[in-house]
Amino acid sequence: MRIALDAMGTDRAPEPEVAGAIEALRKFESDVEVVLVGDEPTIRAELAKHADVPDRLHIHHAPDRVTADDAPASVIRRKPHSSVVVGLRLQKEGAADAFVSAGSTGAVMATSLFTLKPLPGVDRPAVGTLLPTVGEPCLLIDAGANVDCKPHHLVQFAHLGSTYTRNTLGRENPSVALLNIGEEPGKGSELAVETYDLLAAEPGINFVGNIEGRDIIGGGYDVVVCDGFVGNVLLKFYESVAGLIVSRLHKELDRSQVSEGMEFVFRVLDYAETGGAPLLGVGGVSIICHGESTPKAIMNALAVAARAVRSEMVKHSARDVKGVEVS
Amino acid sequence: MRIALDAMGTDRAPEPEVAGAIEALRKFESDVEVVLVGDEPTIRAELAKHADVPDRLHIHHAPDRVTADDAPASVIRRKPHSSVVVGLRLQKEGAADAFVSAGSTGAVMATSLFTLKPLPGVDRPAVGTLLPTVGEPCLLIDAGANVDCKPHHLVQFAHLGSTYTRNTLGRENPSVALLNIGEEPGKGSELAVETYDLLAAEPGINFVGNIEGRDIIGGGYDVVVCDGFVGNVLLKFYESVAGLIVSRLHKELDRSQVSEGMEFVFRVLDYAETGGAPLLGVGGVSIICHGESTPKAIMNALAVAARAVRSEMVKHSARDVKGVEVS
Repeated sequence: MRIALDAMGTDRAPEPEVAGAIEALRKFESDVEVVLVGDEPTIRAELAKHADVPDRLHIHHAPDRVTADDAPASVIRRKPHSSVVVGLRLQKEGAADAFVSAGSTGAVMATSLFTLKPLPGVDRPAVGTLLPTVGEPCLLIDAGANVDCKPHHLVQFAHLGSTYTRNTLGRENPSVALLNIGEEPGKGSELAVETYDLLAAEPGINFVGNIEGRDIIGGGYDVVVCDGFVGNVLLKFYESVAGLIVSRLHKELDRSQVSEGMEFVFRVLDYAETGGAPLLGVGGVSIICHGESTPKAIMNALAVAARAVRSEMVKHSARDVKGVEVS
Repeated sequence: MRIALDAMGTDRAPEPEVAGAIEALRKFESDVEVVLVGDEPTIRAELAKHADVPDRLHIHHAPDRVTADDAPASVIRRKPHSSVVVGLRLQKEGAADAFVSAGSTGAVMATSLFTLKPLPGVDRPAVGTLLPTVGEPCLLIDAGANVDCKPHHLVQFAHLGSTYTRNTLGRENPSVALLNIGEEPGKGSELAVETYDLLAAEPGINFVGNIEGRDIIGGGYDVVVCDGFVGNVLLKFYESVAGLIVSRLHKELDRSQVSEGMEFVFRVLDYAETGGAPLLGVGGVSIICHGESTPKAIMNALAVAARAVRSEMVKHSARDVKGVEVS
């Protein structure tokens, strides 16, 4: 399999991308190849700093680069030679099986939607992000692709999340919870109340009811469904709190100093390097990373991409959402 | 001043209430009196466990108790002799200046609205909660009273938050930020986009623009405005994450082990005992506490109530929101 990696995405590109790709190729199975997409001379200069570059690392030249100033929806027209547009086009043309980028999230989402297209039956592809919990991580969906949602969109998110956690992450009969501000049915916003009723009646989803903000971190839910506004606020807040606490702890402590009781704290710590949230519901694999991704985060995002390809994520999603009624 | 304290609110009532009230009366200025509202025999039995009970501690008998099973809106009719209804009525009748309760949040809010009434010009009273940050705490408003909001409601929250942080907390020219999923104007949900435009044009508010979930914890904003759905999810999520990390740290470390770099971590720790969020925009002082409040949290909530009374919070709010146009 070939994974196209946007080499110009992170704030310090292409250094973390090149280092992460090399690390990945050394660790992953030998059928994985990585194509660095970006300005060839810049990438070559970065590669020259590394010894023993694996020969499964390729370069595909894309001279232009998306910046934070580019309006996401206009990138496809205005920057056709950017690493984001070129990298996604490789997948569309069959020259790559997946795309990974730490570039502008909005631009990657918009260009992915345009290039890979929503799957039949999916109105709103959504970002699924794994949040660390005391137990297994839970998939928060939507983490920011769709701000104003209707109840049936959230039902689609539930299907996309179920399929991903089952087929790609290997969870059996994944539980789906609705993020709300009370546990009883009938609680919450109009959106939440209507979504509850739809989810309770929806076949193919193991719906376990409402949960509150405080219930996430305790674990026990495979998929947590919410609109992209709430999901994005929550995710960014969490990252900042975790990042802050963890950076302070890092300065003060080393791992040998703390016992198993701190395991969760260090899982949160490692989360900073988990990197890589799939855009679910499109006809391809597009993995979105943080702009501040480290080489380890890039490697982990490449692993997410490889797992999605190997598990035939797109095929399973297309099958599972086909039956979803769209109102 | 007299503060009516719901003695039957916490999960372990009346133990934390009685202990917290006694502690408060020992520490506060001598013009503060506390009225324990609840079942008199139960309160007397608890008081008997304490030596030297201050004589500024009174009891007002209320035989009934609100439970989690009571529908919030029906409490006023169905449980007229409950500690929540009786305690708020004391304030309405002028026998108390403030009410503090750790009972069912929904019931306290609904009964406060009914008994104390919204101030003229306020459609939706809102809960303002102080969140610890790296700098000064910020007031998150609405933290859960109103789930489906219109833009002009959020403008009212901005006024209520500004007045409270300025007049009661003593912040000069408090900055107001809109919680959103992007920083530029025009970003976010329909609600956020419209609210941004209204806030930017609203006199009497020091509006500093959009902030994202990740910007809260760094401090620098006095008031963060959002609808009660987002606010409640965020608040509960934060409390759970902070609680978890901090309880693990507590087990592993003591304060002597850690240096000043950890100051923020311990501020988060102490936050668990901050207790007491005012319901802003009603014609009285109603302070909402956690069901799991400790004696220290109860004492702190009584301090919040005393500060609100002393700063004439209601008078300032009534003046500041009077000019707000309600669409």
